[in-house]
Amino acid sequence: MSTSQNQQIQILKAASSKINEVDFDNVTFGSVFTDHLFECDYIQGAWQTPTIKPYAPFLLDPSARVFHYGQAVFEGMKAYKDTNDSIWLFRPDENYKRFNKSAVRMAMPEVPETIFMEGLNELLKLDQAWIKKGLGNSLYIRPFMIATGSGVMASPSDNYKFMILLSPAKAYYSGEVKVLIAEHYSRAANGGIGAAKAAGNYAAQFYPTSLANQAGFQQVIWTDDATHTMLEEAGTMNVFFRINDTLFTAPTSERILDGITRKSLIEIAQKEGIAVSVRPVLVSELVAAAKDGSLKEIFGAGTAAVVNPIAGFSYQEVYYELPKTENSYASLLKEKLTNIQNKLAEDSFGWTVKV
Amino acid sequence: MSTSQNQQIQILKAASSKINEVDFDNVTFGSVFTDHLFECDYIQGAWQTPTIKPYAPFLLDPSARVFHYGQAVFEGMKAYKDTNDSIWLFRPDENYKRFNKSAVRMAMPEVPETIFMEGLNELLKLDQAWIKKGLGNSLYIRPFMIATGSGVMASPSDNYKFMILLSPAKAYYSGEVKVLIAEHYSRAANGGIGAAKAAGNYAAQFYPTSLANQAGFQQVIWTDDATHTMLEEAGTMNVFFRINDTLFTAPTSERILDGITRKSLIEIAQKEGIAVSVRPVLVSELVAAAKDGSLKEIFGAGTAAVVNPIAGFSYQEVYYELPKTENSYASLLKEKLTNIQNKLAEDSFGWTVKV
Ligand SMILES: Cc1ncc(COP(=O)(O)O)c(C=O)c1O
Ligand SMILES: Cc1ncc(COP(=O)(O)O)c(C=O)c1O
Repeated sequence: MSTSQNQQIQILKAASSKINEVDFDNVTFGSVFTDHLFECDYIQGAWQTPTIKPYAPFLLDPSARVFHYGQAVFEGMKAYKDTNDSIWLFRPDENYKRFNKSAVRMAMPEVPETIFMEGLNELLKLDQAWIKKGLGNSLYIRPFMIATGSGVMASPSDNYKFMILLSPAKAYYSGEVKVLIAEHYSRAANGGIGAAKAAGNYAAQFYPTSLANQAGFQQVIWTDDATHTMLEEAGTMNVFFRINDTLFTAPTSERILDGITRKSLIEIAQKEGIAVSVRPVLVSELVAAAKDGSLKEIFGAGTAAVVNPIAGFSYQEVYYELPKTENSYASLLKEKLTNIQNKLAEDSFGWTVKV
Repeated sequence: MSTSQNQQIQILKAASSKINEVDFDNVTFGSVFTDHLFECDYIQGAWQTPTIKPYAPFLLDPSARVFHYGQAVFEGMKAYKDTNDSIWLFRPDENYKRFNKSAVRMAMPEVPETIFMEGLNELLKLDQAWIKKGLGNSLYIRPFMIATGSGVMASPSDNYKFMILLSPAKAYYSGEVKVLIAEHYSRAANGGIGAAKAAGNYAAQFYPTSLANQAGFQQVIWTDDATHTMLEEAGTMNVFFRINDTLFTAPTSERILDGITRKSLIEIAQKEGIAVSVRPVLVSELVAAAKDGSLKEIFGAGTAAVVNPIAGFSYQEVYYELPKTENSYASLLKEKLTNIQNKLAEDSFGWTVKV
């Protein structure tokens, strides 16, 4: 391990790299991490020295607030390598802003932009060999912050740890998925934390999702918790519905995550001349459209899954299979988006940022 | 550190005790822990050797599921010491059952009764010097379980850690509190995890509670998220309302924690001949009763706070101060309950269990 100083970031390099142990073509999403991580502690109101160091377990007190009260937020983003070996991020400012929005909602300190961005950039440069070129390849980036302060009183922590992990990734889901429309369980409350990338939102979905899995469905599409009549989003994806030639997606709200893929796809679709309608979409509309044949496509959109076509949905014990569409919007939008992300097409939106 | 074997629990004793450093009359709730903790790991489907060992930080992988997805549940209970130095628990079977109910909802394994109960009993015996006698004194018990499996895929962990921590406690809140009735924020969704003691439920309340604190209120009384017309519960307490001579409290639901103090108080009240009505209580009723003088008392009920009188509430910017009541139900019920818990009165309900 050698120590050096770079832009106030303390860098401790790993003695050797694990990269040769990794089968990049067959990595399970989120299971393999690069040689280093970025870390910055917040102690009693002050951010400490930002550090890059070898990926390794760390010590926490058994009474750390994150264990007992779930005070934790995260982000999900990706880095791409172009044909010239330059590294690119996709709308990282959006992730940064959303991270701090989540932090505020969970009564956690906002992470300063220099710590977040310079930490990320330096970490990416150090572990750049882990970013593979080519469509479908990327390095998944997981910034997160946890409450490390000790004590089991139900109040915000004084101390926090901000970290960034890197994990080589292929697209998240393999192929099409069947979904279940939620009729009883829900993901978020009005006035709750659904719009934040708060850790607790995700474990809350595991049990209902496991019930769906047992019934043969890979994902749940959540509905509003009060009436279960409005389609909201999936576990880690926003959802689009194509009825005839119009794309519908729910407006974001305090129950729904404001997805960066979602808003990028809306802009790409509009540029491609596709009609997009952002308004509450009713389950009853979806069922009616499936019955009369006007429902052409459903797809999920998110950083991990990119664009994920949905093969069909189940509602009130009835399964509605979607038709095979020739000029699929999902395929078109996915191609346009990933070409921009991978620097294979011009980025007329100005979304890509060089590391 | 010495090692011994007891009922299959591996016991590693601390070399020395920290007990003389503790000012038992002035401990902040949840801030001081005893010399030992109980721990049992669940690895790929199997519970490992239960262990009692010195309280100390432990290592976790940065990608541990608890940090990213909030897969974590807990319980809160208390041990009491009677005048003969015997140690007593209050309805521990209820905490055990609720713990596993929470675990199931969060897609976590249920903890076997022997691990939970024998672990707790052995730990209490070892650290019994930390339990102080006398009304108001107790040892707060924090069983909890976290997802320790590594990997940032949004799915349940394979590995978990179950732990029990002990913390000497006085009653949680000092004196009366003023509360704010929630008009925008909420604690739980229909079909959500509100009825589970899931970690994420608590951090979700920190921000709205801090807004209430800034406005001069110590606690929030949550309302249903869909209409904000029904009174539900406080952050770590169920709530009772006395209108004339009847006690009202909301029925438990999937949005409300089924509190053990709440149900014990209902039984004690009934035994004392107090009329108890378990039904949804409307904010409008509360305001009307405050205005016409029929609202006599509001109090919270929970293990940490025991019975906590509420001095007044604010709703739609109006503060309603409660009258001083001579024969307060809160005082009567608190006395009856704590006398049973501390073995100062006969336990005709059979709630107390000797360690
Ligand atoms: C709940 C939820 N919805 C939607 C998304 C998609 O958001 P984005 O496109 O920014 O990745 C995510 C995560 O990535 C999510 O966690
Ligand atoms: C949300 C919530 N409501 C109510 C209670 C009271 O439950 P109990 O009386 O079992 O302690 C608690 C915790 O203790 C709680 O966390």
